[in-house]
Amino acid sequence: MTSQHPVAPGRIVAIGGAEDRTSDLEILREVFALAPEGQDEVAVIATASGIPDEVLPDYEAAFSRLGASRVHLLGIRDRQQAAEDDTVRLIKQSGVIFFTGGDQLRLTNVLGGSPVLSAIRDRLEDGAVVAGTSAGAAAMPGTMIYNGAAADALRKGAVNMTFGLGFVDGLIIDSHFLERGRFTRLMEVGASNPEYLGVGLGEDAGVIIHPNGILEAIGPGHVVLIDSRDLASSNIADLSMGEPVAVEHMILHALVSGHGFDIEARRYLVPHELGAILAESR
Amino acid sequence: MTSQHPVAPGRIVAIGGAEDRTSDLEILREVFALAPEGQDEVAVIATASGIPDEVLPDYEAAFSRLGASRVHLLGIRDRQQAAEDDTVRLIKQSGVIFFTGGDQLRLTNVLGGSPVLSAIRDRLEDGAVVAGTSAGAAAMPGTMIYNGAAADALRKGAVNMTFGLGFVDGLIIDSHFLERGRFTRLMEVGASNPEYLGVGLGEDAGVIIHPNGILEAIGPGHVVLIDSRDLASSNIADLSMGEPVAVEHMILHALVSGHGFDIEARRYLVPHELGAILAESR
Repeated sequence: MTSQHPVAPGRIVAIGGAEDRTSDLEILREVFALAPEGQDEVAVIATASGIPDEVLPDYEAAFSRLGASRVHLLGIRDRQQAAEDDTVRLIKQSGVIFFTGGDQLRLTNVLGGSPVLSAIRDRLEDGAVVAGTSAGAAAMPGTMIYNGAAADALRKGAVNMTFGLGFVDGLIIDSHFLERGRFTRLMEVGASNPEYLGVGLGEDAGVIIHPNGILEAIGPGHVVLIDSRDLASSNIADLSMGEPVAVEHMILHALVSGHGFDIEARRYLVPHELGAILAESR
Repeated sequence: MTSQHPVAPGRIVAIGGAEDRTSDLEILREVFALAPEGQDEVAVIATASGIPDEVLPDYEAAFSRLGASRVHLLGIRDRQQAAEDDTVRLIKQSGVIFFTGGDQLRLTNVLGGSPVLSAIRDRLEDGAVVAGTSAGAAAMPGTMIYNGAAADALRKGAVNMTFGLGFVDGLIIDSHFLERGRFTRLMEVGASNPEYLGVGLGEDAGVIIHPNGILEAIGPGHVVLIDSRDLASSNIADLSMGEPVAVEHMILHALVSGHGFDIEARRYLVPHELGAILAESR
């Protein structure tokens, strides 16, 4: 992945966790609406979750209500299951592939390099929508955060990162962002390499990542962006591990539903600007 | 208060809470060192605290260790006590006046308009140092935050504000900032009026506010600044109460000990720049 924004024709939807699954289904409705014409089967992957049997039925009910013809509940607990032909076949049939929350390291550890992951990438190329919530959102970029105490993550080495699922590049995603006060995590990442946009998803909020590199905020919550491209100075390279990181000049935005952002141009899009760009690209 | 930075000749020190009181005393040592020559009595005001008898002895021991000739422990529980001549006299004798943590609304409710508060303002004019931690820091500006759930304070009306003690103007102070994830509180304040600098103090971190409007970070923790002066757009005025606030372009800095900021010029000062400015003003 060398480009700075997504190139696959399918939409990616990253959700900050705790999205409504039983009432208005505002975010899940947007996810399902992005499925390609006539592809109304949904695959829900609960690999990240420690309690798949508790999580999966909610999604089955929600997507069924929204009009899915079939909802495939895929636990995928280990690498053997991530290679099963039957599971790959169900992925290939689905217009929506949805990752539940849980632990993003379990997600990458089980799915990394697997036939199931290859099949999902192929589906994305073919225009399917790939969505994930909480850990399922955090794991989407080429590089992900999997640990880091929010209390003060702005200390050298406090944030643990590794390769993600690689659906999108040029950004880093954090979830439960406002609720768990995770600003310092994205600040540390931004200080370590200012090239990548920090995307902090609040609960019951999400972003659609359009193929042209446009972010579109959805849901009742907030999407916070931390743009470090113009970082003026930081001491991070000179510090010992654990020492506090200084940061001069990062740019902070808070998007609500209907607002957008152009990743490449680093430009905030108010609703009429976002609408014009999305209409153009259709 | 019409000026945009402090004009009193004394130093103000605002601390984010949980400063070391028993070991190295890094921050309290800096506070005591700012006392005018020969004025080595300290007044500790525990009005904000619900447990003054537990809090005061720690400060008595700490300031005594640092060389205070006397430490006056002032509970000041009500407005009658805030008017007592004996208490006013002890304030007048002290080169350091220190506010403990607790509830900033108790602090302003008991001290607002009182003879004790007048005496403290006079001391500041005469060059004494006025310091406060946690609630004692939050209450220092002309306007203060006294409530607002950090989980998502970036909703119209989520942050409650009122008049503070008025020792400094042009900024708003929040404490326990990184530990409690309070970024959204200062973002809401910045959206409501972008003129005022947001100062977010981490625990065991503080700022010296020099009379020339220079902030100097001290202590092992972080001082986060949210500068909304260049805010490009926000929907805040169009929202109903409780709706999520959008914010386009705030500037974020994280200062560590030895780094500074020029409030008026909105300029980050790396250590050698801060050192030069402070040397000049001596």
